[in-house]
Amino acid sequence: MGVTRYDILIVGGSAAGYTAALTAKKLYPDKKVLMIRAVGKPPIPCAIPYLAATIEACDRNLLPDKPLKDLGVEVVEDRVTEIDRSSKVVRTASGASYGYDKLILATGALPFVPPSIKGADLEGVYTIIKDYNVLMKLQEAIRRAEKIVIVGGGFIGVELADDLSNLQGKKVTIVEMLPHCLLLNLDEEFAVEAEERLKAKGVEIITGKAVRSIYGSGKAEGVELSDGTRIPADVVVICVGVKPNVELASRAGLKIGESGAIAVDEYMRTSDPDIFAIGDCAEKRSFFTGKPKPLYLASIACHEARVAVFNLYGLRMMKSSSGYVGAFLTVIGGRAFGVAGLTEREAKREGLDVVVGSAEVPNRHPGLLPGATKTRIKLIFAKDSGTLVGAEASGGPEVAELTNLLALAVQTRSTVTDLLTLQYGTQPMLTASPVSYYVVAAAFNAYLKLKGS
Amino acid sequence: MGVTRYDILIVGGSAAGYTAALTAKKLYPDKKVLMIRAVGKPPIPCAIPYLAATIEACDRNLLPDKPLKDLGVEVVEDRVTEIDRSSKVVRTASGASYGYDKLILATGALPFVPPSIKGADLEGVYTIIKDYNVLMKLQEAIRRAEKIVIVGGGFIGVELADDLSNLQGKKVTIVEMLPHCLLLNLDEEFAVEAEERLKAKGVEIITGKAVRSIYGSGKAEGVELSDGTRIPADVVVICVGVKPNVELASRAGLKIGESGAIAVDEYMRTSDPDIFAIGDCAEKRSFFTGKPKPLYLASIACHEARVAVFNLYGLRMMKSSSGYVGAFLTVIGGRAFGVAGLTEREAKREGLDVVVGSAEVPNRHPGLLPGATKTRIKLIFAKDSGTLVGAEASGGPEVAELTNLLALAVQTRSTVTDLLTLQYGTQPMLTASPVSYYVVAAAFNAYLKLKGS
Repeated sequence: MGVTRYDILIVGGSAAGYTAALTAKKLYPDKKVLMIRAVGKPPIPCAIPYLAATIEACDRNLLPDKPLKDLGVEVVEDRVTEIDRSSKVVRTASGASYGYDKLILATGALPFVPPSIKGADLEGVYTIIKDYNVLMKLQEAIRRAEKIVIVGGGFIGVELADDLSNLQGKKVTIVEMLPHCLLLNLDEEFAVEAEERLKAKGVEIITGKAVRSIYGSGKAEGVELSDGTRIPADVVVICVGVKPNVELASRAGLKIGESGAIAVDEYMRTSDPDIFAIGDCAEKRSFFTGKPKPLYLASIACHEARVAVFNLYGLRMMKSSSGYVGAFLTVIGGRAFGVAGLTEREAKREGLDVVVGSAEVPNRHPGLLPGATKTRIKLIFAKDSGTLVGAEASGGPEVAELTNLLALAVQTRSTVTDLLTLQYGTQPMLTASPVSYYVVAAAFNAYLKLKGS
Repeated sequence: MGVTRYDILIVGGSAAGYTAALTAKKLYPDKKVLMIRAVGKPPIPCAIPYLAATIEACDRNLLPDKPLKDLGVEVVEDRVTEIDRSSKVVRTASGASYGYDKLILATGALPFVPPSIKGADLEGVYTIIKDYNVLMKLQEAIRRAEKIVIVGGGFIGVELADDLSNLQGKKVTIVEMLPHCLLLNLDEEFAVEAEERLKAKGVEIITGKAVRSIYGSGKAEGVELSDGTRIPADVVVICVGVKPNVELASRAGLKIGESGAIAVDEYMRTSDPDIFAIGDCAEKRSFFTGKPKPLYLASIACHEARVAVFNLYGLRMMKSSSGYVGAFLTVIGGRAFGVAGLTEREAKREGLDVVVGSAEVPNRHPGLLPGATKTRIKLIFAKDSGTLVGAEASGGPEVAELTNLLALAVQTRSTVTDLLTLQYGTQPMLTASPVSYYVVAAAFNAYLKLKGS
């Protein structure tokens, strides 16, 4: 009984697997490419928080199959249960087998529910998972609910709260253990600004308290905090974080890194030279320290998909830098927030002596033009070398590409004087004034501090 | 009779002079700084095209005096008529004299009216000049006019037309000599897209024809084209270009460059070591060829102001690169356009063998989220080295900072593989999907062409 063999076999159909499949067929049109995904109708992952109000229907938020079909990627819906590395074959839950020459694992991450939270198995308790059927159920539950408690004030939690606050007649509460929401990714001043935006939309935010249990008989009726406070809830969504899904890789004997994700080299190769791992299941390292860093970002997943595919048949050195800078973007209460690289707090925790430059400037000139707001920017430089190590911004939608510009500046190890003399374009309807362009204004502020010190 | 002496004397109060004054007082708080400007109430230059409809009043578009006063910059309204370099004194139209240690010339550029156009001296004919009183008159005239002809379809012409098309009951016509508007700065496909936006707003565009004369008895009644066609007009605005205003520098015996602007070195020093020139009056060179290039941009003017001030008392090497990339941004019919570096046409004219990568991707994911449009991007690479030499984009407001990101990529001599593996952030409400991020998608397109060639 022959097993169908594929040149490139990809396990997983979300951002990483999807990008790997497209890239593979574009780069190697003659190769036979198979993608095996556990569930059909894969949602666009980053937009999941917006399903209930902004997007309204799960079916309007799917990664389209058409590009895969047009390029000739074969797609199977099944769950891979075993990798036989000696015969280079994977086996699935339905009993099928597929052979591979090169295997790419994109098994993603799974939501983490702290065992300390009792009652997480009650009806009405959800995690955010990239599964169409589960998301449909969650959406139904949200529609019926009056009181929704979100456990965890990271990006997914605050984006979900922001979206739900657009629905009429819902009481939305976030419970965050740290002193502020988003504190793992933003410095306090930006985190506080984000919280204020949420509060203005009617979201209640409880910080500095853990959820001890979810109570209710059969069905969730509320959460109980560490101080005994009870908050009634019809639906509880737990989004306190994710863990790399490495079960398949682990069972196949692939090396797992110190952080618990699949160990990979710079080109996404695992300990087996014919098996690559990409996306949330693969270990990532910091651009600054080389240490493992949990960076669960679709943008990085897609980047890794490309790096893996380009280097599948021998190294082509297709990689711009070692380690990840990390660029996070979000929108809260209509205001965009971005961060690239290290926050001031992170930099100090790493033992870095920093100088910070800040500015707050209108994003139009004059500042009365349509779309005008004050855009805040903060640049974090290493004091000795003057090298940019991080940046944060909040403001209009320009913050997205401004953050990406700053991510590039970090990658190219730009210094305070490089940014002070940056070449940039401005336009009254689109940007800050050339007199006070965001990056230059903040770099000048840092320069004056460096000079004075 | 003593002459008051200043450490730093700046001639000119628009973007360059204004930025120089602010930067000087921030960097050298103890120095005595004087700015002499020819007219009061200096308008924010780049927003002048938006005065009639969007901004509505000249007084809402002024460079604020407050920051100058707060920092202690002295401001005089007078016209400098002479520089006495031996005694280091400038003299003014009103008969005053001011001494300087360091002199910064920011005399700008003046609109150019081709002598071939007859009748340009008729009443009702205007140029765009940074003078409050003239702009007030122009605005009055536009208010009364029914038919407005704009001669010249460069950035100022199309932005003015775009703004005027928002007013009720005006017939706006652009006459452009080249085959398309904006063709000096954009490749044809983007120029055509911009024209379509203007036409959709009711602007008539006549291309490939020159204006031979402006006719009328005493007052302009219309323009006559090279083919004899007559277009009636109550107001004619000539914006076919500007020329550096070097009269003062020239009379003082400072070296004028081959392009007709004041010759300066990398640090904005003129042929007199105590005199600097910045902004539109100073010669600029191309980042790519080192040849003089007419880049009349407020962003470059402000950049040069900072470079001059930082290097005023001995070189501090405060300069990020030699020559200017040039980043132009505009908005037409609500769509943003950006260009950084060379267009494909310019690159080919310089004899460069290029490979072009293009992409058109939704700027939201899924593409039905608020603010969604298809953003087009074009990257121009040198074929041999794979180095990015230019980029163009059109789409939502994200195009502004995307263009600035690409300007930085040009400055850092990023290659096609650098951009293919660029680290970037994405967010459903703010950017393209991570699967098809603008820059990466276009770089991949170029890569496939390079590989196939």
